[in-house]
Amino acid sequence: MAWAITKSELDHKNLLINESLLSLGNGYLGVRGNFEEGYDSDFQSIRGTYINAFHDETEITYGEKQYAFPDKQQKLLNVIDAQTVQIYVDGDRFSLFSGEIVSFERTLHLDKGYSERKIHWKSPNGKEVQMEFRRLVSFVTRELFAIDIKIEPLNDVNELKIISRVDGDVSNFTDENDPRVASGHAKRLFVSEAKMTEGFTAIKDTTFETQLDVTCITSTCVDKEGSYNNYISDSVIEEEYKVKGPVRFSKYNVYTDSLRYGENVLEEGIKIQHRLANLSFEELMSEQKEYLDNFWKLTDVKIDGDKSLQEGIRFNLYQLLQSVGKDPISNIASKGLSGEGYEGHYFWDTEIYMLPVFLMTNPAIAKNLLLHRYSLLNSARERAREMGHENGALFPWRTITGGESSAFFPAGTAQYHINADIAYSYIQYYLVTRDEEFLKDYMVEVLVETARLWIDTGHFKDGQFRIDDVTGPDEYTCIVNNNYYTNVMAKHNLLWAVKVFRHLKETNKIEELSNQLNLNADEVELWEEAGEKMFLPYDENLGIHAQDDSFLKKARWNLENTNKENFPLLLHYHPLTLYRYQVCKQADTVLGHFLLEDEADIDTIRQSYDYYEAITTHDSSLSYCVFSIMASKLGYEKKAYSYFNKTARLDLENRHGNTKDGLHMANMGGAWLAIVYGFAGLRVKESGLSMHPRLPKQWNALEFHLRFRGRVIQIKMENDIVCYTLVEGNNLTIQHREEEIHLEQGIEIRK
Amino acid sequence: MAWAITKSELDHKNLLINESLLSLGNGYLGVRGNFEEGYDSDFQSIRGTYINAFHDETEITYGEKQYAFPDKQQKLLNVIDAQTVQIYVDGDRFSLFSGEIVSFERTLHLDKGYSERKIHWKSPNGKEVQMEFRRLVSFVTRELFAIDIKIEPLNDVNELKIISRVDGDVSNFTDENDPRVASGHAKRLFVSEAKMTEGFTAIKDTTFETQLDVTCITSTCVDKEGSYNNYISDSVIEEEYKVKGPVRFSKYNVYTDSLRYGENVLEEGIKIQHRLANLSFEELMSEQKEYLDNFWKLTDVKIDGDKSLQEGIRFNLYQLLQSVGKDPISNIASKGLSGEGYEGHYFWDTEIYMLPVFLMTNPAIAKNLLLHRYSLLNSARERAREMGHENGALFPWRTITGGESSAFFPAGTAQYHINADIAYSYIQYYLVTRDEEFLKDYMVEVLVETARLWIDTGHFKDGQFRIDDVTGPDEYTCIVNNNYYTNVMAKHNLLWAVKVFRHLKETNKIEELSNQLNLNADEVELWEEAGEKMFLPYDENLGIHAQDDSFLKKARWNLENTNKENFPLLLHYHPLTLYRYQVCKQADTVLGHFLLEDEADIDTIRQSYDYYEAITTHDSSLSYCVFSIMASKLGYEKKAYSYFNKTARLDLENRHGNTKDGLHMANMGGAWLAIVYGFAGLRVKESGLSMHPRLPKQWNALEFHLRFRGRVIQIKMENDIVCYTLVEGNNLTIQHREEEIHLEQGIEIRK
Repeated sequence: MAWAITKSELDHKNLLINESLLSLGNGYLGVRGNFEEGYDSDFQSIRGTYINAFHDETEITYGEKQYAFPDKQQKLLNVIDAQTVQIYVDGDRFSLFSGEIVSFERTLHLDKGYSERKIHWKSPNGKEVQMEFRRLVSFVTRELFAIDIKIEPLNDVNELKIISRVDGDVSNFTDENDPRVASGHAKRLFVSEAKMTEGFTAIKDTTFETQLDVTCITSTCVDKEGSYNNYISDSVIEEEYKVKGPVRFSKYNVYTDSLRYGENVLEEGIKIQHRLANLSFEELMSEQKEYLDNFWKLTDVKIDGDKSLQEGIRFNLYQLLQSVGKDPISNIASKGLSGEGYEGHYFWDTEIYMLPVFLMTNPAIAKNLLLHRYSLLNSARERAREMGHENGALFPWRTITGGESSAFFPAGTAQYHINADIAYSYIQYYLVTRDEEFLKDYMVEVLVETARLWIDTGHFKDGQFRIDDVTGPDEYTCIVNNNYYTNVMAKHNLLWAVKVFRHLKETNKIEELSNQLNLNADEVELWEEAGEKMFLPYDENLGIHAQDDSFLKKARWNLENTNKENFPLLLHYHPLTLYRYQVCKQADTVLGHFLLEDEADIDTIRQSYDYYEAITTHDSSLSYCVFSIMASKLGYEKKAYSYFNKTARLDLENRHGNTKDGLHMANMGGAWLAIVYGFAGLRVKESGLSMHPRLPKQWNALEFHLRFRGRVIQIKMENDIVCYTLVEGNNLTIQHREEEIHLEQGIEIRK
Repeated sequence: MAWAITKSELDHKNLLINESLLSLGNGYLGVRGNFEEGYDSDFQSIRGTYINAFHDETEITYGEKQYAFPDKQQKLLNVIDAQTVQIYVDGDRFSLFSGEIVSFERTLHLDKGYSERKIHWKSPNGKEVQMEFRRLVSFVTRELFAIDIKIEPLNDVNELKIISRVDGDVSNFTDENDPRVASGHAKRLFVSEAKMTEGFTAIKDTTFETQLDVTCITSTCVDKEGSYNNYISDSVIEEEYKVKGPVRFSKYNVYTDSLRYGENVLEEGIKIQHRLANLSFEELMSEQKEYLDNFWKLTDVKIDGDKSLQEGIRFNLYQLLQSVGKDPISNIASKGLSGEGYEGHYFWDTEIYMLPVFLMTNPAIAKNLLLHRYSLLNSARERAREMGHENGALFPWRTITGGESSAFFPAGTAQYHINADIAYSYIQYYLVTRDEEFLKDYMVEVLVETARLWIDTGHFKDGQFRIDDVTGPDEYTCIVNNNYYTNVMAKHNLLWAVKVFRHLKETNKIEELSNQLNLNADEVELWEEAGEKMFLPYDENLGIHAQDDSFLKKARWNLENTNKENFPLLLHYHPLTLYRYQVCKQADTVLGHFLLEDEADIDTIRQSYDYYEAITTHDSSLSYCVFSIMASKLGYEKKAYSYFNKTARLDLENRHGNTKDGLHMANMGGAWLAIVYGFAGLRVKESGLSMHPRLPKQWNALEFHLRFRGRVIQIKMENDIVCYTLVEGNNLTIQHREEEIHLEQGIEIRK
């Protein structure tokens, strides 16, 4: 149960939302849930197919440009459209907006990895057909987007005509009111080839600026004799089948791009098509099911007691799997591959909100994400130089292949914390895997270069190490001094750089690295001093860490008296107004207390939570989950549950009003965090893995698995009992609340 | 002596600079010092004619737009070009870049108000002519730009051909590398009419967005019989004269615009031309001389001891007169009417750097500037609402007719101090004139609305009134809390609003106003409390006012070790880098100590000066003059003189490297301030006028006049003697250093 997302709306608003919700993807390729046959003329569908990291560059214009503002912005592209299939029933063109819809339902199958539409349609001329559309984006052959359509006449139908289109003349979505349309931001691809070859239709598109190629090789067939024709124009290829019904039509579309296949992009697509030639749609479905069985086996989270939340968390985990890049070229876009919001950029969302999900369930995927960041290290070094830093690397706030793509620096480039967030994710990976090779080959370099940047950014003053003029996670208070979150994360970053250096020294691996990274012990001591003397602003009266040096001195925003229509505040107030008040877009200090809970005592953490909660709008979708986790920790059960409720179904209920532009992937990761770090109280520290379970009283049971240092642990919380079972791997000691418990394979420990 | 600026360079760099330096204007109309006949083909001249406030609106695009960012930017337009006159000598087209230049010199006459070019030219075919070009922009008929050309053959010349052009197809200057060109920022006018009428050529241009009209009505004549033709195209009218032998050609161009003349702009231009019909160029020159005699009589500053500085200060005063708007529609653009830099916008430059010059010498002009600001009050109220303020008015950082035109808010809109700067200028005007009508009709409203804005912007905390998230004058440190300059100026603003309210109450004039402005005594008490409790950050250790709450906690920029090529810093460092350090673009706290010297004791003022001077780059042209004034006050004679030297000839020596884009008007005002407020130590306070003269030892004498409450006072400083003479008006007591002195008309007081 709760493995299917079913929808039957046909109004424009919901159709747009459902395009995102019912999108299919596999981390490489993503296709929005558009209708094959199209819409009525007044509906502006966002018809989209995306390849992770496949982008062009567009110019950024500024009213007043300042030094080192980025000139170009990378942009994920909507690529060749292969979704279209038009169906004519005795001359009546099928549409869900004409004739009579006797029945209509569409379903996304989270367990089987495909979507389907079942339609009973009566044409304007009274011809009735039953149709079933199924589509999948394969987890096994990542280049493949397959469509399968069954059409069964229900009364006297003479001819079924099927026109399958592949269209290379595509643009990104634009709003008429968007001033960037005119500057050519939408149309970034031109068709460089369109032909029939070896029985396939083949279209190649090329980007204007980056000169990247993408091809779509399509094979179609019907299971019936009839007539066949094709029509090729400069940019579109149509194939036409005429048969007498019932018929089954299939369309396999293979997408390749030059980021992965270089110059032979077209030839490689054809090769893949040949490999697929003998695979029926049923066989594709069966492969898909096998992949997902394997995924769900250890990734599923079972909630007994709330179907709606069960559905929410499964949907989120499924979408995370559909979005996450699994090759060295890609990461997780903030909207996954489900829409064009945020231009397909990668943010800190990955490291802080999504990577932990994979790290604890599918560590190979997590490792790939870290390697992708590592691949951006040279760009980050260059960016640091541009930004006036003599040493270190500064990761861009938003990017695809490494160039800073943020165009509003106070809430973009100024968020230096992304450096510490990335360092944190490497440290967490190491704590979970103890992968010494990884540490030596990648992690040390990332920690060294980020530590160096902190030294270059901050300065010592009166015995403290201070970091001025950065922006923390809260974008309603930009360009501040000594943001607690930034400073505490930078401290962690610096001291772990020291730790890793000494660890490698002990194991005699440091010499080569020292030369390579031009490291010396003096520099390492400076990191240690900066880390130890890091200034963490604290207010004695309130007993809380101040969000930054000046935050608590500002006027408090009166949230109670703010008109509901004025949320999110950023759409109704100038940044200066927001900066001038104690008001938070999202968890900031509270997030710092989650990620590094040992840096503050529990009273401070509680008081901080109470204080900041009252002035937080949660206008960012990254906020609820953190408040849920911390409410769990503090024993605020109602709040923990209520915030979790808001996070678990945020997109399914379109709570932020913009799901049409794509799913809120970080929030989806956050929902898992709220369960595993919140209700189950997971933490991974140097001392190992610990759990502090607190099952919501609304639930009967909660069950999930964790991977940790080669083990698989099943955790089941039921009423007041927690059962730990080591499913795979060697014996392990973990901590359950204040107690150490010893796990042996196959033996259930009840607590 | 020192009344003529003479130039003879013909290299491209200097030609561009000289276009600005030799520009002519009268506050309404401005014409750059371009050559009538044009240039060689590879020279990109900035050919410009401007009407103060005549503008169009262009779209501002942002990479990421935030709420209440302005959509449109006003832009001063280069209007119809009437400068062009081509001369052919027996078929050889005259150019300073062909043939042989036997002699060439051009001169701007500061005392007579015209410019001239004298050229002895030998054509490629060996024909020699002596030519004299004279031009003036009339102070008497503000619409008139007149050109007079004498051509005298020096050897055998058969025919002189003169082609006079008026060209309506004009654009603003653009750099090829300027990304805004493509978005149509340069071409903002189209020709709506071009014809011959009543013997004049008439061209009317219209702006694309604002639908404003400008016309140029031109009459030309020669003093010789010969042939005449004219050629009219869609956008250009050419008149051609062919004559033999010495000839004198004149061209009167009358510019009218719909901001001043409404719909009848063309007819009014023709009327003006008819009025000018009987005035010879000599008569125009004579009127001009009379106007300037009158101006210089009381405005001249005589420096005995340095010709170069004498020239500098006269040039500056002359350019101020050429730039200042004298009608209710215009103000002083930051580049005057000499170029297109800063889009012809009005800034705080007017109130703080230029208005005092007029206030103390030509108070009617000063009053007009204040009335112009008053005319923007409603726009400022609207802008305050956009910016989220429930009460008060927020003047835009840069504007022409009132709309905020700044596109980078940290160094634009965030400079809330402009409100207090404007209030300050009203208060100074009142102190100098004691104009009670003005106080009641305009000043009280400005003070009330600006006071209200401070209340709405700041807040009380722990017994202090604090103002968060604004930017002070120093644009290298943006968006700060409790900027000393802002706070001390806001305090002055608030307490004067209280003072004016009580003053009007005493004189029974407040009731009507109270209703009109919805004023009550409680509100006024709040202003008083806020003013009295205004937080002025002070550092006890250093004994200085901190520029803002966090400034002194930041790292100090090492100016000594900064590569010279890296100045101005803003062209070589990202804003965040600059914000992160103690480094100032310009006087900030030091300016606060100048404008409100009684708010700090002399030790604090001295220590502040010493401290901030060491970290100030003077990358803004508004800085040197303030440091000169304060160095004078503090007895730092060498520094006072050295800073004055940098300010007095800043444009004449192209010290900022961008004089080609227009003159630095505020600095020109600042040079006068450095003399009168610096070397002569003028201050105007409630107690009256005081002087604290300190003649630079490099000079033998300094002499100037001041107007004060209907009087004219002559001040002469010679060696150690200061002579005060009341030239006009009733007896007056002023302060000379610590001493009160009584002035009676005609009696020289020596001190």
